[in-house]
Amino acid sequence: MNDYKFSDIKIGLGGGLSVNITQEMVDTFCKITGDINPLHTDLEFAKSKGFQEKVVYGMLTSSFLSTLAGVYLPGKNSLIHEVNILFKKPVFLSDSPISIEGKVIEINEIFKQFTIKFEIKNKNGDKVSRGTMKVGVLDE
Amino acid sequence: MNDYKFSDIKIGLGGGLSVNITQEMVDTFCKITGDINPLHTDLEFAKSKGFQEKVVYGMLTSSFLSTLAGVYLPGKNSLIHEVNILFKKPVFLSDSPISIEGKVIEINEIFKQFTIKFEIKNKNGDKVSRGTMKVGVLDE
Repeated sequence: MNDYKFSDIKIGLGGGLSVNITQEMVDTFCKITGDINPLHTDLEFAKSKGFQEKVVYGMLTSSFLSTLAGVYLPGKNSLIHEVNILFKKPVFLSDSPISIEGKVIEINEIFKQFTIKFEIKNKNGDKVSRGTMKVGVLDE
Repeated sequence: MNDYKFSDIKIGLGGGLSVNITQEMVDTFCKITGDINPLHTDLEFAKSKGFQEKVVYGMLTSSFLSTLAGVYLPGKNSLIHEVNILFKKPVFLSDSPISIEGKVIEINEIFKQFTIKFEIKNKNGDKVSRGTMKVGVLDE
């Protein structure tokens, strides 16, 4: 786990991770959230809506933003203040592994907070979502 | 599960759910995401940062936005396009159950998309996060 202090955070500093999304993760996300929507659980329904496979929950792929901030950028002293996500393409299990990459684009000295611009890509390098996060640094 | 068609979506239409957050959910979220940040797993560390309890992952409480759209608003024909979340207060296990409530505030006929304004509150009625989601309706 990284342990960046606020003074270590510079514009352009980056971090990221690669994740293998599995059916078990999808099943567990379904069980935890109660989101039983058939787009995520029923292949025939997903096909009837024009998708070739069941769609992985967007909020599951977004869950790794927690890891991006909490383990990598800044790591140990992280507290997420704000998250903005734009979903650009559906994610399928066959798109796995996905990569979650972020970079510091703004630093707010008053709030000891910085802004990460992030992209989530599938194994083909297609951007599936992108956005920004504001993250506080609790290094006092 | 609701099954609203795009033509059923009106400004002011609401939906929501109440969720009991458990230690098991937190442990499972940790395992899936790999976010081993001690703010969420180590009481002494959380106390050293000024919190009375371990902090529940913000992206775990946000996961129920998937359920809000996929089961309730609009339900079956849901596809989330965009999510914007502002975290206002940390969530602790003792804050549970939390409520996730949304209301339609804008409708886009061109994209067959609508905007939900949502609030997540703890059991005391304190707002812990709020934001907006843009959701598409796949009813064709």
